[in-house]
Amino acid sequence: MSARQMKLGAFLMATGHHVAAWRHPQVPADAGLDFQHYRHLAQVAEAGCFDTLFLADSVAAATGDSASQMARSDHFEPLTLLSALSVVTERIGLISTVTTSYNEPYHVARQFASLDHLSGGRAGWNLVTSDAAAEAGNFGRDEHIGHAERYSRAREFHQVVTGLWDSWSADAFVRDKASGQYYDPAGRRELNHVGDHFKVKGPLNVARSPQGRPVVVQAGSSEAGRALAARTADVIFTAQPSLTAAQAFYADLKNRAATFGRSADELKIMPGVFVVVGETQALAQAKFEAFQDLVQPEVGVALLGRMLGNFDLSGYPLDGPLPELPLTDSGQRSRQQLLSELAEREHLNLAQLGRRIAGGRGHFSLIGTAAQIADQLQLWFQNGAADGFNVLVPHLPGGLEDFARQVVPELQRRGLFRTHYTGTTLREHLGLPEINGR
Amino acid sequence: MSARQMKLGAFLMATGHHVAAWRHPQVPADAGLDFQHYRHLAQVAEAGCFDTLFLADSVAAATGDSASQMARSDHFEPLTLLSALSVVTERIGLISTVTTSYNEPYHVARQFASLDHLSGGRAGWNLVTSDAAAEAGNFGRDEHIGHAERYSRAREFHQVVTGLWDSWSADAFVRDKASGQYYDPAGRRELNHVGDHFKVKGPLNVARSPQGRPVVVQAGSSEAGRALAARTADVIFTAQPSLTAAQAFYADLKNRAATFGRSADELKIMPGVFVVVGETQALAQAKFEAFQDLVQPEVGVALLGRMLGNFDLSGYPLDGPLPELPLTDSGQRSRQQLLSELAEREHLNLAQLGRRIAGGRGHFSLIGTAAQIADQLQLWFQNGAADGFNVLVPHLPGGLEDFARQVVPELQRRGLFRTHYTGTTLREHLGLPEINGR
Repeated sequence: MSARQMKLGAFLMATGHHVAAWRHPQVPADAGLDFQHYRHLAQVAEAGCFDTLFLADSVAAATGDSASQMARSDHFEPLTLLSALSVVTERIGLISTVTTSYNEPYHVARQFASLDHLSGGRAGWNLVTSDAAAEAGNFGRDEHIGHAERYSRAREFHQVVTGLWDSWSADAFVRDKASGQYYDPAGRRELNHVGDHFKVKGPLNVARSPQGRPVVVQAGSSEAGRALAARTADVIFTAQPSLTAAQAFYADLKNRAATFGRSADELKIMPGVFVVVGETQALAQAKFEAFQDLVQPEVGVALLGRMLGNFDLSGYPLDGPLPELPLTDSGQRSRQQLLSELAEREHLNLAQLGRRIAGGRGHFSLIGTAAQIADQLQLWFQNGAADGFNVLVPHLPGGLEDFARQVVPELQRRGLFRTHYTGTTLREHLGLPEINGR
Repeated sequence: MSARQMKLGAFLMATGHHVAAWRHPQVPADAGLDFQHYRHLAQVAEAGCFDTLFLADSVAAATGDSASQMARSDHFEPLTLLSALSVVTERIGLISTVTTSYNEPYHVARQFASLDHLSGGRAGWNLVTSDAAAEAGNFGRDEHIGHAERYSRAREFHQVVTGLWDSWSADAFVRDKASGQYYDPAGRRELNHVGDHFKVKGPLNVARSPQGRPVVVQAGSSEAGRALAARTADVIFTAQPSLTAAQAFYADLKNRAATFGRSADELKIMPGVFVVVGETQALAQAKFEAFQDLVQPEVGVALLGRMLGNFDLSGYPLDGPLPELPLTDSGQRSRQQLLSELAEREHLNLAQLGRRIAGGRGHFSLIGTAAQIADQLQLWFQNGAADGFNVLVPHLPGGLEDFARQVVPELQRRGLFRTHYTGTTLREHLGLPEINGR
C-alpha cells in the first residue's frame, strides 16, 4: 500500500445529482425527506470506507414552475439530518454546508460542536457564502449581499466560530464531586470579539469538542474564495473540468497555503467528480443516457440559470447560444466562467448546455468501468491535481452502491484507498493535524 | 379508564434539575454531553408512555466562577440532540426550547419541520423570549432586548414560522415521474411577510410536515406572555407553586383562549412539578436531603440570582433577606414575584431561599411515595389546575426511572394515564386538533 491514501467524500443529494434522477424508475422520488433512504446511503458509504458524507444546502426553496423544478424544494435541514445519521454510523465523517451570509456564528459554532460531540469527532462544516438571491428574501433583504461584503463577512464569521470552538480547554471541565468545582476557570476563554460584522462575547456553551475543532471545508474558487480557503480551510471542495485545470488550481492553493505558513498536508484538495459506473464502457454510457433522456429541455436550462447566478433563461431560444450575461456581483463568477468555457469548447446551444450539465453540473465527469474510473482518479491523485475526490453520482442509492462496491475495491486493490478505518475522527481519516485544545 | 387522560412531559436537564445533582455519586457528572445518557432517558420515558421529552435552552454559557457554577455550561445544542434521539425512539414527542430573540424565523421553521419529518410527526417548539443578558452579548448587542420589544418580536416570529410551515399543501409534491411534474404550483404558498421585525418571502424548503405544524409550547406568565400563549400556543408550560395559584392561572388562560375563539381543549396547560419518589415518605425526604446537603450556599444563591433576572447576589449577606431588586425590563418579572412571595411566606433568608429552590426552582414540589404523588397530581388534574404536568426530577437518570416505574403505574391503575400509545404523533398524544394542511 502506498503511503499516501486518497480521500473520498460521498456527496449526497436526495435523489442524486442528475437533475432528472427522480424520474428514473429505480429512484425513490421522495428521497429528500426519507430518513431510511439517508440511513442506507450513510451505511453504504461507511461500508465503503469513505472519509465523509457531504451535504450541500440552500436556505431557500428552488424557484420556477413545476416542470422546471429540480427535486430540491423538499429536503431535510442538514444539521438535523446529520445528527440523526450520527446515531446509525460509527466512523464516517459528517460534513454539512452552512452559509455565513444569513446566520449567526454563535449558532453555527454551537451546532457543529454539538454534532462533533454526538458523533465522537466526525463533524465538518462546509463554509460558504450564499449565492442565491432567493435566500436574501428569506432573511429580511430585498437584494443579495454583494460578493466582497459576503467574503468579508465570511472571513470574520470563520474567525468567530473557531474562536468559540476554542472557548474551553480540553480539560476545563474537571467536575470534581468532592470539592464541588465543576470547571477550572483557567480553562475558560471568553472571546470578546468585536469586528466589522460581529460582536460576540462567548464563551460557547458546549465543552471542547472531540476534534478540538470540527473540520472546515470551503468551496470558493474566486480570488476572494481562494484567499480565504488557503488561509483557513482544512479541505477544499472544487469543480475542475480537466486535469490541467485541476493541477493549476491545486498548485495555486498549496502555494497560497504556504504563504500563510501552512504545510501542504494541512490543506486537502478534493475536486468533485461525477461518476457513472458500468460493467462495460457502453453499459455505463447507456446508464447515463437513460437519465439524459429524462431531462426536459426547460429543466436543464433552468438548472443552468440557477448555476450561472440565478438568471431566468426561460426567455431565450433553446437552440440559441448561451446569452451574454452580466458578471454580476451577486452571481457565481467562477461557475459562470466554467460554463461559458464549456459551451464554447463543445459548441453547445442553450438546451445542449443545459443537458450537458444535467448530471455533473460542470464537475469532472467519468462514465465507464470501475477500472477506467480508477485510472482517471489515480492519474489526478498521483499528478498533483487532487488529494481525493468528492463523489457525485447521478442517482441514489444506486449510483453510490455502484461506486462503493465496484470503484472502491478497485482503488483498494491498487493500494490507493484504505480497506478499513484506522482512526475514529474525521481529522484522523483526512490526515489533518490534531488540535488538542490545551 | 376515564375519558380525560393526563399529559406528561419528561423535562430533561443533563444531570437533573437539582443544582447539586452532578455531585451525587449516582449521577454521571458529564451527562450534558453524553448521548448514551440521553438515549437511556428517552427510552425510559418512552417505556413510561410519556407524551414528550422537553428540553430547556440558553444561547449563552452560565456565568460565575467555578464554585457557583451549575452543571450547565457544557451541553448539547437541543435540535441536534433531539434529531439524534428521534432515531432511537418511536413514539415519544420531542420538544425543544428555541428563543425568538436571537434567531431568524426561517431557520427555526426549517429545523422543526425537518425534525418533524425525521421523527414521523413528533416535533414541538417551546417558543420563548430570552431573559438572560448574557445571551445578548453573543449576538452583537450590549444590552438585552426590552420586555415589550421581545414580546412584539416573539408574536411576529410565531406568525412567520407558522406561515412558513404552511408553505406547501399536504399534497403539493406530486412527483409524477411520467409527466415530469415534481410539484403542483397550486399547493405552493409564498409567504411574502413584511412586518415590524421581519421580512420573509418563503416558501420553506421543506415539504409540509407530518403534523401539519409542529406543536407550539409557550412558557411566559407575564401579561404579554399570557396574551401571546392564549392566542397561539398548543401547550403552556408554567411554574405554579400551589393548587389555588394553578387554578387561577388555568382559568385565566382558558378564558383568554376563548376570547380568541379557541376551545378549551385546543390549549393544554402543563405546570411543572418537581418530584422525588421514595418507598416511604421518610425515604423520599431523605433522598431529597442527600441532594440538599450537596448544595454549596453560594451555588444556591447564584442560581437564585440567575432566576431573578441575572442579578449578581454574591455581595449580599447569606443570612440576610432577599434584597429588594429592581423589576427591570430585562428581568423575569413573573419569576421574581414567585420567589419573593416564597421567601416571605416561608421566612427564608438568602441562603435558605437559594437552598429552597435548588431542586424545583420554584415549581410545585412533591416529595413522597408514588401514591402520595399520584394523589396530588390527580387533585390538580381533576380540579381545574392542570391538563398534565411537565415532570422535573432532581437527578438523572435515577429520578426519571423512579417516576416512570413507580408513579406512572400508579396513575395508570387509577385510569388517569395511558398504558400504551394510541397515536403516532405528538398532536395525537396531546389530543390536539389535527392540521391537515390542505
